[in-house]
Amino acid sequence: MNGADQRIPVGVLGATGSVGQRMVRLLDGHPWFRVAFLGASSRSAGRPYREAVHWVQDGPIPGEVAEMEVRDVEPGLDAPLVLSALDSSVAGEVERRFADAGALVVSNAKNHRMDPDVPLLIPEVNGDHLALLDSQSGGGIVTNPNCSTIGLALSLKPLHDAFGVHSVHVVTLQAVSGGGIPGVASMEILDNVVPYIGGEEEKLELETGKILGTLSSGTVAPARIQISAQCNRVPVIDGHLECVSVGFSRDASPEEAARVLSEFQGATRGLNLPSAPRRPIHVLTGEADPQPRLHRDLDRGMAVSVGRIRPCPLLSLRYVLLSHNTIRGAAGGALLGAELVVARGRLAGYDPPGT
Amino acid sequence: MNGADQRIPVGVLGATGSVGQRMVRLLDGHPWFRVAFLGASSRSAGRPYREAVHWVQDGPIPGEVAEMEVRDVEPGLDAPLVLSALDSSVAGEVERRFADAGALVVSNAKNHRMDPDVPLLIPEVNGDHLALLDSQSGGGIVTNPNCSTIGLALSLKPLHDAFGVHSVHVVTLQAVSGGGIPGVASMEILDNVVPYIGGEEEKLELETGKILGTLSSGTVAPARIQISAQCNRVPVIDGHLECVSVGFSRDASPEEAARVLSEFQGATRGLNLPSAPRRPIHVLTGEADPQPRLHRDLDRGMAVSVGRIRPCPLLSLRYVLLSHNTIRGAAGGALLGAELVVARGRLAGYDPPGT
Amino acid sequence: MNGADQRIPVGVLGATGSVGQRMVRLLDGHPWFRVAFLGASSRSAGRPYREAVHWVQDGPIPGEVAEMEVRDVEPGLDAPLVLSALDSSVAGEVERRFADAGALVVSNAKNHRMDPDVPLLIPEVNGDHLALLDSQSGGGIVTNPNCSTIGLALSLKPLHDAFGVHSVHVVTLQAVSGGGIPGVASMEILDNVVPYIGGEEEKLELETGKILGTLSSGTVAPARIQISAQCNRVPVIDGHLECVSVGFSRDASPEEAARVLSEFQGATRGLNLPSAPRRPIHVLTGEADPQPRLHRDLDRGMAVSVGRIRPCPLLSLRYVLLSHNTIRGAAGGALLGAELVVARGRLAGYDPPGT
Amino acid sequence: MNGADQRIPVGVLGATGSVGQRMVRLLDGHPWFRVAFLGASSRSAGRPYREAVHWVQDGPIPGEVAEMEVRDVEPGLDAPLVLSALDSSVAGEVERRFADAGALVVSNAKNHRMDPDVPLLIPEVNGDHLALLDSQSGGGIVTNPNCSTIGLALSLKPLHDAFGVHSVHVVTLQAVSGGGIPGVASMEILDNVVPYIGGEEEKLELETGKILGTLSSGTVAPARIQISAQCNRVPVIDGHLECVSVGFSRDASPEEAARVLSEFQGATRGLNLPSAPRRPIHVLTGEADPQPRLHRDLDRGMAVSVGRIRPCPLLSLRYVLLSHNTIRGAAGGALLGAELVVARGRLAGYDPPGT
Repeated sequence: MNGADQRIPVGVLGATGSVGQRMVRLLDGHPWFRVAFLGASSRSAGRPYREAVHWVQDGPIPGEVAEMEVRDVEPGLDAPLVLSALDSSVAGEVERRFADAGALVVSNAKNHRMDPDVPLLIPEVNGDHLALLDSQSGGGIVTNPNCSTIGLALSLKPLHDAFGVHSVHVVTLQAVSGGGIPGVASMEILDNVVPYIGGEEEKLELETGKILGTLSSGTVAPARIQISAQCNRVPVIDGHLECVSVGFSRDASPEEAARVLSEFQGATRGLNLPSAPRRPIHVLTGEADPQPRLHRDLDRGMAVSVGRIRPCPLLSLRYVLLSHNTIRGAAGGALLGAELVVARGRLAGYDPPGT
Repeated sequence: MNGADQRIPVGVLGATGSVGQRMVRLLDGHPWFRVAFLGASSRSAGRPYREAVHWVQDGPIPGEVAEMEVRDVEPGLDAPLVLSALDSSVAGEVERRFADAGALVVSNAKNHRMDPDVPLLIPEVNGDHLALLDSQSGGGIVTNPNCSTIGLALSLKPLHDAFGVHSVHVVTLQAVSGGGIPGVASMEILDNVVPYIGGEEEKLELETGKILGTLSSGTVAPARIQISAQCNRVPVIDGHLECVSVGFSRDASPEEAARVLSEFQGATRGLNLPSAPRRPIHVLTGEADPQPRLHRDLDRGMAVSVGRIRPCPLLSLRYVLLSHNTIRGAAGGALLGAELVVARGRLAGYDPPGT
Repeated sequence: MNGADQRIPVGVLGATGSVGQRMVRLLDGHPWFRVAFLGASSRSAGRPYREAVHWVQDGPIPGEVAEMEVRDVEPGLDAPLVLSALDSSVAGEVERRFADAGALVVSNAKNHRMDPDVPLLIPEVNGDHLALLDSQSGGGIVTNPNCSTIGLALSLKPLHDAFGVHSVHVVTLQAVSGGGIPGVASMEILDNVVPYIGGEEEKLELETGKILGTLSSGTVAPARIQISAQCNRVPVIDGHLECVSVGFSRDASPEEAARVLSEFQGATRGLNLPSAPRRPIHVLTGEADPQPRLHRDLDRGMAVSVGRIRPCPLLSLRYVLLSHNTIRGAAGGALLGAELVVARGRLAGYDPPGT
Repeated sequence: MNGADQRIPVGVLGATGSVGQRMVRLLDGHPWFRVAFLGASSRSAGRPYREAVHWVQDGPIPGEVAEMEVRDVEPGLDAPLVLSALDSSVAGEVERRFADAGALVVSNAKNHRMDPDVPLLIPEVNGDHLALLDSQSGGGIVTNPNCSTIGLALSLKPLHDAFGVHSVHVVTLQAVSGGGIPGVASMEILDNVVPYIGGEEEKLELETGKILGTLSSGTVAPARIQISAQCNRVPVIDGHLECVSVGFSRDASPEEAARVLSEFQGATRGLNLPSAPRRPIHVLTGEADPQPRLHRDLDRGMAVSVGRIRPCPLLSLRYVLLSHNTIRGAAGGALLGAELVVARGRLAGYDPPGT
């Protein structure tokens, strides 16, 4: 925080929500970034963060930001890089304003995800889509996919490259933290499952195609994959589990699939991004793995776990995947995206500190 | 219990387990049946039921049986009709002994389900399969399908009749009561999902074909339906939820499917079986229905709820179904089967009381 | 609903909340009362009840009210008797307006509970406190105690009469339904306990004295009992459990205490109130009873269960009690209070139907 | 593991259970100790640990022990120091055999806790009780108190020293991991509380006196404190919460109590034990703190959290405490005890490595 702090100033929009809190935690002690401001709704503005926030994370509020005054999400907040965890009711316009004012915004909100000139980024999967930023004016907007899309698309990428994916059937069992704060009421979910999450199935079916799509002449042509998604909310704190069946163009055994999943490194290979997992995908061999409580924190919550790879009577193979929805699927994913933006030299005037 | 009690004496095997307890509750005040004996392992034998059982049902132990002495599951226990909730480690042999001794056994255990001469009965779906009893010697054995199969097969029957089902993709979210007592440890399931239930996927894939199969020349030819099943245990007490995608040979709109499901009566129509639901399938229209806690007790837990009927990008239609796994899916289903056996005149020497 | 319906018209204020929903369910098929109007905030007003409500009860919305238009809680709503489940932010004023307009209001809200001229009523315990209505103008207001107070005070009444209670130490484990809708967020309570409920400890410590107090010369002198209360929220849907230690002026064995608790009938004896439990207090003898899931529905949720009565090393005796917080502790308790009001002839112009 | 490994060889008895698994995790990378053998019942013996154990911890089995062969808990297993997580059905005899054979056994089992010559050790509280080892023959036995006793006694120690505790009323809300594996069935605890844990109340009432007792002439005279304990099992994975009321001989304000609790260091001060928390007791000031999910992992699960310190209408003060039951309350507590044993020079022939 003193003159010697070479880290890049980062603003957090929507800092009091569930994902915003995770961002604040992950930025604590980050080697490249430091928190420059915390933005939230006018209801919170003007109060110290520790008062404005209803903190629900394990462990305490980081000391560096506990007393930081929360600011209204209005122009004039100054940081070259902004992480947004805003609610979609306001994110579209606010993020646009920050980008117009010159900031590079990495957003977890859904509003700009399907804009043709906005990268829908999973760093390991489609880091090349950052080229779309060339078409944007201002600082630019990069988006992070939906929390349940990220795990699915990450697992599909190496399979698609190796075997050609044409069909996907996915049923999700999603944790309550994905619903934010207050989110799902306890009366709705104790001793219960809610087999519907508004808009979620459409996001899974639509976003995956863009993420796995091909960049050509400055636009992304979506991958041609038929996807059927069914989404459920279950009484789990963190960790989205997904039961996936996938149809390939080329034959593949479970062993072959396990190998390409395990070996996958993707577009972040060699970049040493601070938030990157050692391995994007962990293939587990326990007969009942992965499980949310046991495996969501693998590789600091940034890895996807895959287990139970086996033949499918209808498509080619089936498997179960798990990803930590508020780390890899939201705050950590956006942070990794911001790191890639910097590593690729797309944050004008800033290099990765220490390089 | 006195001389005036015209009800048919029924024995319960495995009376201290989770399903056995449900049977005992459902038999309390039953108009056709009365409890003649309670059988359990030799560890429980000789003790009054209220002492031998670790009761986990809502509401108290029925007064009529609380003091009844639990008996070893050995020959000599006398009742023409026997409901079995025995563990599969002993059920195969014990049930056979009772049948050989002349009892008609309606079993919830898996052991004899796939025997060629044993009906795998869902009364509304394949009541005609009771004709297989003609091939059996002794009293006979009738089996109740797996708890997750029953809801699926019930919902498939009217769809199959109307539109021709050729493919089914099903992912289950199953309640812990399906695991019996002690069953799933609390440490395994709190804040967690277990994406594996030993043998369950195979049962779903195999049993459904036999249930929907065609009786001809004294044998059942299984229906030709490709089924892909993935089974999960979730922290819910009662009620199995299933996310189903189904492929039809003939086109069908969601509205047409909803109509045939709602109107389904099946092979119990007009029989006035005491445990039959008013309607086997309830089609719900709420956007997030059905849900275990809200709908598992519909029609006293004997109905299957279906909701969210909508097109599937891969197969024809998708829907969510719910059935109460220890009532419709186990104890109540077996009891309804026993009622059908009596109503069809297949319990030698006994007619439905009052007729 | 037709001319032949002799039942007393009853309005429900706050009909869309958790307690209001319970009131609506309990009024369905009630022999004395019929729903005359459903009142809620202006946000809900004008819509059919089934649309305005986020229904979270087991079982469907009663057919009689599903299409009833929700009304704003403004004067002009016409019913001689009003049940209020309003939020305390508005209840004080709204209930007063209805009383001024001539209605007799039985309220579950906290606002008027400690008013000197308002009965804080548990029918079995202090039915005589209805005499306070003589001091009120207009239709009158009667209040239902806090959900955790009701079970405690019910259990203390017979003990106080028999042995003289001077000290009470109580720690509660309260269900989430007590927090209303949306109430406690699922992220706050899954795999967690919250050892604080705002204002709850004060209510327990204060209300109990008034309820057990003595009516004399038109006022209630509170009972002199020292109470220490600690309140916790636990991940349970329904049913408040309380660990109680109680100090007596006279010696009493656990057996004597069990007897006076079991035999307690109180001020509703012989009145045949439709919602009265067969027995207000059930003494259970299982070593781990009572438990919320097993015993909350005893006597249709209107009875209090008491177990584990044993000596206390610090005070006289200890016990565990359970009461259904949204039935006996809220909607059902208020309804029973309304029935007592009618039975005692305090609803001008109306007798109990059928008498 | 090679010749250069100067760490003290440690055996783990009962290594496959819940507490044994925690011990194995905590020993992974321990600076003083290395795992020399893993002992379990004969059913597990001879199999590699990863096969013999039903692992339920977050994170994977430590690589160093995953393939280690589990041994029967018979004489001949060679290590100077043994941690025991054996079930009490066998612990008494097995631990005695190991001690007779010369090992120093630090046990989490209840069997020897109240033996007059066995220290019931909480290192910060009564490290001087290790002098009881002088009366023992063989290697010696040291015991770790019950999981719910540890948090209570730790919090009482500084209060007792400062203000003189004469009375304690405690109600516990205990996590399911305290019941071991399989322990509490999921059907017993989902949507439920079980207000009884066999033997637990007696342990709390009895052990606390010995722990806070005074060593004199080679024996411990128990502290004279009247304790009333009520114990509940709640649906929480880890973390025992306790609602405590305490009566002092001298007046003390909440602020004074908070100060002595915060400043407490106890008998481990200056020893730099590897598993010691930075501070044994954290006083939290949030109105709803401590909470199991938020605070159980403070100081790596080795600290006790205390909050809501306030006056008690019956005794002197009230507070809420939380401790991690399988870390501080079991495996970590035993490990800290073993470290104290070594630091105090009571493991013949071994000094703390690196000193």
